[in-house]
Amino acid sequence: MTLPPEFALIARHFRPLAGEGALGLTDDAALLAPPPGRELVLAADAMVAGVHFLPDDPAETIGRKLLRVNLSDLAAMGADPLGYLMTIALPRGTPDSWLEAFTLGLARDQAEYGLSVLGGDTVSTPGPLTLSLTILGTVPPGQALRRSGARPGDEIWVTGTIGDGHLGLAAARGTLADPDGYLADRYRLPRPRLSIGRALRGVATACMDVSDGLVQDLGHLCRASDCGAVIHASSIPRSPAAQDADISALITGGDDYELLFALPPGSLPSGMAATRIGQFTATSMDVVVLDDAGRPMPLTRQGWSHV
Amino acid sequence: MTLPPEFALIARHFRPLAGEGALGLTDDAALLAPPPGRELVLAADAMVAGVHFLPDDPAETIGRKLLRVNLSDLAAMGADPLGYLMTIALPRGTPDSWLEAFTLGLARDQAEYGLSVLGGDTVSTPGPLTLSLTILGTVPPGQALRRSGARPGDEIWVTGTIGDGHLGLAAARGTLADPDGYLADRYRLPRPRLSIGRALRGVATACMDVSDGLVQDLGHLCRASDCGAVIHASSIPRSPAAQDADISALITGGDDYELLFALPPGSLPSGMAATRIGQFTATSMDVVVLDDAGRPMPLTRQGWSHV
Repeated sequence: MTLPPEFALIARHFRPLAGEGALGLTDDAALLAPPPGRELVLAADAMVAGVHFLPDDPAETIGRKLLRVNLSDLAAMGADPLGYLMTIALPRGTPDSWLEAFTLGLARDQAEYGLSVLGGDTVSTPGPLTLSLTILGTVPPGQALRRSGARPGDEIWVTGTIGDGHLGLAAARGTLADPDGYLADRYRLPRPRLSIGRALRGVATACMDVSDGLVQDLGHLCRASDCGAVIHASSIPRSPAAQDADISALITGGDDYELLFALPPGSLPSGMAATRIGQFTATSMDVVVLDDAGRPMPLTRQGWSHV
Repeated sequence: MTLPPEFALIARHFRPLAGEGALGLTDDAALLAPPPGRELVLAADAMVAGVHFLPDDPAETIGRKLLRVNLSDLAAMGADPLGYLMTIALPRGTPDSWLEAFTLGLARDQAEYGLSVLGGDTVSTPGPLTLSLTILGTVPPGQALRRSGARPGDEIWVTGTIGDGHLGLAAARGTLADPDGYLADRYRLPRPRLSIGRALRGVATACMDVSDGLVQDLGHLCRASDCGAVIHASSIPRSPAAQDADISALITGGDDYELLFALPPGSLPSGMAATRIGQFTATSMDVVVLDDAGRPMPLTRQGWSHV
């Protein structure tokens, strides 16, 4: 009996990605003995062509972006990756070569981040390519980083640089010069800060990842922690490629996938690469951004909404 | 600070569905202590409007269908439901009333099947409504039902009736008479056979759910178990509404979501509602369907492929 197209496709492209527990992707579900003495951390994100990535982005980076966006959620909780399930709504007529590059990218990131696919589903769609991924990770009991523990007086820190993803979208679209491709790469391939998240367990009082704009995401952290926040525009870390960009665009644009966290003063773990950008306050749940002269900056928007 | 539309939508419609571990859907991920002494069972399915359900199906049944399709995968493994994550790519301009009905349906099924939402993502799409759901369940260690244990001589059994979902699609489209709405309801709301799956632990030698056509799915079971199968067309259980339908359409149409399982002769648990339809053989990995005269029936197709 010849396998119908769906199952041949799974066997050819996805079975090589399957890890322990996936049962070769031939059963109704995956089967996993949870690591003893750990809590599970679970997150899911979806991406739509033309909304979260460009339809002509390289196939090799599209699946990796979705995997890394989800890994960034694990990093934000201080979790270690365990595995993932992915569903793909594939436009009819997608060539086999596209799937080959797509799964090659996933294979590279599975090796880099130490996890493998547990299951999923491939369906066809008359609409744009639509991907959904559920990630599983683990933390020692009670040690997950949460958004709700920041206290007035805690310092506000971020990893990496802010705004490259936002500029990278323009670069990938060809509307911004990007001679060495640095910015487009930052848009297409986030760097989930897993080792920093892990090192913040028991140290940070609150943590989240910045995905929808620094100001808006800091607002979420303030609401969860019942604090206000003051940050200094001049202290926002920028990459060399972002030195001349408008600061308000950098701090309200999406796709950073850096960690934003709260530390009691003076408690940054030694050797950790991060930048202090401000302080939590008791005054309100608002985020105030101060310009170079110490005046609150007016912002026309806070960040991204996906609906 | 006013919440942007995405977060207001989550707070209004999805937070009421959130259970233990979901952290009110306000953190980066869910946090779950896995039930001690159990294995995890994980599956994911996607559905696209116009492909897996009709664009004008009632909003209330669309989310329930996806949840039940995934619950059917848990049933096939003999697992108990634990929770789920759902991502929704929502066409722009979807009215709030649609989401209200959609989440009301989910709330009803959460109560019926004893699980709750752990997380997810809502994004907008220029294409059709596209849903993805990852389900988590648990089984006692080593007791998950698999596809691979059927042996020549084992009996082939199915739950419920076969072909109602296939006819129900035609009924929902208005191309088949369905005076009492029974068939359309079978298409829109599968009945995951969780209690039967549970009762088959340690009894069935193989099990799966029938979703893409009985003949094709039985072929999967045969390949996984390295067996052949002979089934009798006259023994296929049919609902009253399917009595006059073409048998080859019933056994190759999709959307049954019944359990198909292998039992050593005479080992059906007492009181279990199921129908014996044939026997596994040692002859090949093919599925042979015998007609009333005992002759192999020619079938133009085996079942559904989703790509």
